[in-house]
Amino acid sequence: MTASAGKPMTHEDQIRAIIFDWSDAVRAKDAARLVANLAPDARVFDLITPLQYVGAQTVRQRVEQWLSSFTGPLAYDVHQLRIAAGDDVAFCHSINSIKGQTKDGKAIDMAWRATVCFERISGQWYATHEHSSVPFDMTTGQASLDLKP
Amino acid sequence: MTASAGKPMTHEDQIRAIIFDWSDAVRAKDAARLVANLAPDARVFDLITPLQYVGAQTVRQRVEQWLSSFTGPLAYDVHQLRIAAGDDVAFCHSINSIKGQTKDGKAIDMAWRATVCFERISGQWYATHEHSSVPFDMTTGQASLDLKP
Repeated sequence: MTASAGKPMTHEDQIRAIIFDWSDAVRAKDAARLVANLAPDARVFDLITPLQYVGAQTVRQRVEQWLSSFTGPLAYDVHQLRIAAGDDVAFCHSINSIKGQTKDGKAIDMAWRATVCFERISGQWYATHEHSSVPFDMTTGQASLDLKP
Repeated sequence: MTASAGKPMTHEDQIRAIIFDWSDAVRAKDAARLVANLAPDARVFDLITPLQYVGAQTVRQRVEQWLSSFTGPLAYDVHQLRIAAGDDVAFCHSINSIKGQTKDGKAIDMAWRATVCFERISGQWYATHEHSSVPFDMTTGQASLDLKP
């Protein structure tokens, strides 16, 4: 991978490029692109039940279901992105927000916490673990779906 | 850090030792020990609101509040721990469970997803990011507090 100027991309640049590519994939509702850099045996902790998803194929089904629940354009943004990248292990975290309309007429405008953990396999970065969540309100037990980044 | 046999601990061993030490700290309700390997500027996404906590001091207050809400012994376990450790960056994820009694008489028996991200600073591993959560039920908006590992 090289940057446009021909200078080799740092590991951090490469991770950032994957995150930005995934953002484009969400806006384009392109599930295949959104799981392209996911390791085959990735373990994913998602916003909604169940406790975990194991394997890129299972995640892809979930992603397809999620993206196809929307109609019209999607506003998707990654805020407060921080990346720590070593030679073979990296992670990043951010607050992500989405705004759109579901096919059954619901307006979605929410933010969540995202952590993505990467390993470099045969010279290429793959996400082997993802964790997305919203916190809950201890008094009501309700998930906090109205948080702002 | 060396293992008992005198053989130097691998990075993975060192991360595992921190996780096990934290487990002992939870059972001992020792907040200071639980934040000992947390970086001063760590960003923590916790189970309950708000969206995030920034800084070890803020996290320590939250941890003290949490641990002091229990009375009697705490059963705490880390399940399905997986560690990926490079030379300077590492992460691990697991399903954690706790069982105990709160001071106001509530029986707690719950599991959550935990991701901890580490960086090696001056030869010592520190957690610079933590993410703990439960997923929520999309139909009710309720956090899932009855999940089993």
